Amino acid sequence: MSPTPDFGRVVLRRGRPREPLSTDPASTSNSELQPMLRRPFLVSATVMAAFSLMACDPGETDASPDRTPGLGAAEYGIVIHGGAGTIVRENLTEELEAAYHEALRAALEAGNEVLEAGGSAMDAVVAAVVILEDEPLFNAGRGSVFTSEGTNELDAAVMDGRDLDAGAVAGVTTLRNPILLARLVMEESPHVLFTGDGAETFADQFELERVGPDWFYTDARWEALERAREREEITLSWHMEEDRMIGTVGAVARDRSGNLAAATSTGGMTNKRFGRVGDVPIIGAGTYASNASCAISATGHGEYFIRNVVAREICARMEHRGETLQEAADAVVMVQLLDHGGTGGVVGIDRDGHIALTMNTPGMYRGHFLAGGEPFTAIYADEGDGR
Amino acid sequence: MSPTPDFGRVVLRRGRPREPLSTDPASTSNSELQPMLRRPFLVSATVMAAFSLMACDPGETDASPDRTPGLGAAEYGIVIHGGAGTIVRENLTEELEAAYHEALRAALEAGNEVLEAGGSAMDAVVAAVVILEDEPLFNAGRGSVFTSEGTNELDAAVMDGRDLDAGAVAGVTTLRNPILLARLVMEESPHVLFTGDGAETFADQFELERVGPDWFYTDARWEALERAREREEITLSWHMEEDRMIGTVGAVARDRSGNLAAATSTGGMTNKRFGRVGDVPIIGAGTYASNASCAISATGHGEYFIRNVVAREICARMEHRGETLQEAADAVVMVQLLDHGGTGGVVGIDRDGHIALTMNTPGMYRGHFLAGGEPFTAIYADEGDGR
Repeated sequence: MSPTPDFGRVVLRRGRPREPLSTDPASTSNSELQPMLRRPFLVSATVMAAFSLMACDPGETDASPDRTPGLGAAEYGIVIHGGAGTIVRENLTEELEAAYHEALRAALEAGNEVLEAGGSAMDAVVAAVVILEDEPLFNAGRGSVFTSEGTNELDAAVMDGRDLDAGAVAGVTTLRNPILLARLVMEESPHVLFTGDGAETFADQFELERVGPDWFYTDARWEALERAREREEITLSWHMEEDRMIGTVGAVARDRSGNLAAATSTGGMTNKRFGRVGDVPIIGAGTYASNASCAISATGHGEYFIRNVVAREICARMEHRGETLQEAADAVVMVQLLDHGGTGGVVGIDRDGHIALTMNTPGMYRGHFLAGGEPFTAIYADEGDGR
Repeated sequence: MSPTPDFGRVVLRRGRPREPLSTDPASTSNSELQPMLRRPFLVSATVMAAFSLMACDPGETDASPDRTPGLGAAEYGIVIHGGAGTIVRENLTEELEAAYHEALRAALEAGNEVLEAGGSAMDAVVAAVVILEDEPLFNAGRGSVFTSEGTNELDAAVMDGRDLDAGAVAGVTTLRNPILLARLVMEESPHVLFTGDGAETFADQFELERVGPDWFYTDARWEALERAREREEITLSWHMEEDRMIGTVGAVARDRSGNLAAATSTGGMTNKRFGRVGDVPIIGAGTYASNASCAISATGHGEYFIRNVVAREICARMEHRGETLQEAADAVVMVQLLDHGGTGGVVGIDRDGHIALTMNTPGMYRGHFLAGGEPFTAIYADEGDGR
């Protein structure tokens, strides 16, 4: 599947121009307000890429504020995740670990290929997420978990940091790659969020690949549903074990022009009922991008990410408090979310090309590929960022 | 209909306690960063209630930071809206104006009754929104507009500033008062957002009043659908005239204990397709409440409110930049939203009881009822705040 697909027959048009907007980040610098990490035993992987100019064509290194990365930052790069949670060595075989690393690497390479060729951050994050959606290991696209009715309801969102444009779908059932439909909502409608049957009808206007229920079937996901059903029947209560929510995928990128983008996709929660929608298609919660600060894709216990508006809040702390990306991610993920009992993690990249991979869980499938570097992938929190 | 209904047979329970959390607002004060209003011809109605202690029982005026309002603020109060847009005198008869004022006043009195008796901010905002949902004048509940299929899809959300708990529903079709279902999602499930048929199934577990399609039928709404259909058929393009989006209702309140809450409800957009969801059920966009800063309910062109995360952004500017509620509302509604072409308004109340009613449109149905005062209602922007 092409990472930058031709969207085929597009019958709907909107008039809004897609020019970059001026950015006006906050100039406040409140160094006395550094977040105190109250749980230092949790690893927060920080990466400051230090070879930003190595891959530059000399013509690319002019003084434009949108194109010159800051100190220790990458000119372009992509950061991805495949879900956070209680991911521990006891539960993964060496073969499975290798498969995760390989899938993450394939997604990073697809994104990097776009960026290296001068493509947009949006093209890069979509290319990476398409790879992750097609990989049964992750709870998104093909590997999506089952609802209580034994169906698959998928959510996805994209956001473009240039103009805060965004698109999202919730509860789609026949799309091989929901992230492509989310992008079409952004680009070919004046709306942001389409849901359920309506989103499917919108999709009918485009040549997107549709799949039947068997596309999503794996023994592991079906057994997970049966286990969840049994537990919920026994306890007669909401069964919210964290293992039902691992596996959202996402990507953030900065391109050579300094534009940021974010994309996130999920198969939801095993045995979910009532058309529950988590944080992924909620702009600001699971997905956010603004060239004024950063692009964020989140993964974890979605309800907490919605209530804390996690993705936007990290950007807001950068814009309004003058925090670095890492300071802001730590304040939100390692302090605020944990104070509320919310588990999960985020990946982010800022306007200067600094990146963050931050989780308050034992593991997060993750990786990055930055200009001039090699792809890096990791699973457990104690693996850090490979530097 | 009782403004504080008995929710009847509740079969689902969750274990999470609902205690107030400690608030930790930002202490930054960046007075040099006051927003510059670039469009001074637009009226921003500001209210600083100046009689906060008049209605206090002496026992209520101790030094607890959660109970003592700041200078010029109300000990308790409610602020409501019934939609913002191109609301101009030429289009409203005197009779219609009087009907709007009467409906707004009834909602304010329902909310004030709760607050005066020592009830919670959450009870107050729900009581007010129930009144507005039952009033055919507004695009919410009974007065909801029609989708392209001639059906009615309603969205609603509530948020509790004590613990950032929230509940929302999108695309419900048989609920007389969607705001009551949103509250049940918050209180009786561990989730935040239920959609479509799933939300209806969730509702089946409670004794909420259900209605048939005729409940929502009014000649005016049906004619609006027919006009929108004709225009869209003629132009073969997305028809996004603003008059299709006027009429969301909402309320924010501060109670005697210093807790904040927000509630918003809408009938969506005339002739909407594809299960489009606007900002109302998106926590952070149309609805947000945090005791650390403020409670906000928004109304307007929902897509812009989603992309700018309007409700949370106002709270974030208070928390992170030290702005007042009015400064933050002006920066977001009068500058940021307008820069993106987004029209609408917000009502807000902050942790100290200051309020704001801010719109970048010629009108917003609105009102407030503050401790020790009288109910105030207004329609056109040039009517200000009655002080």
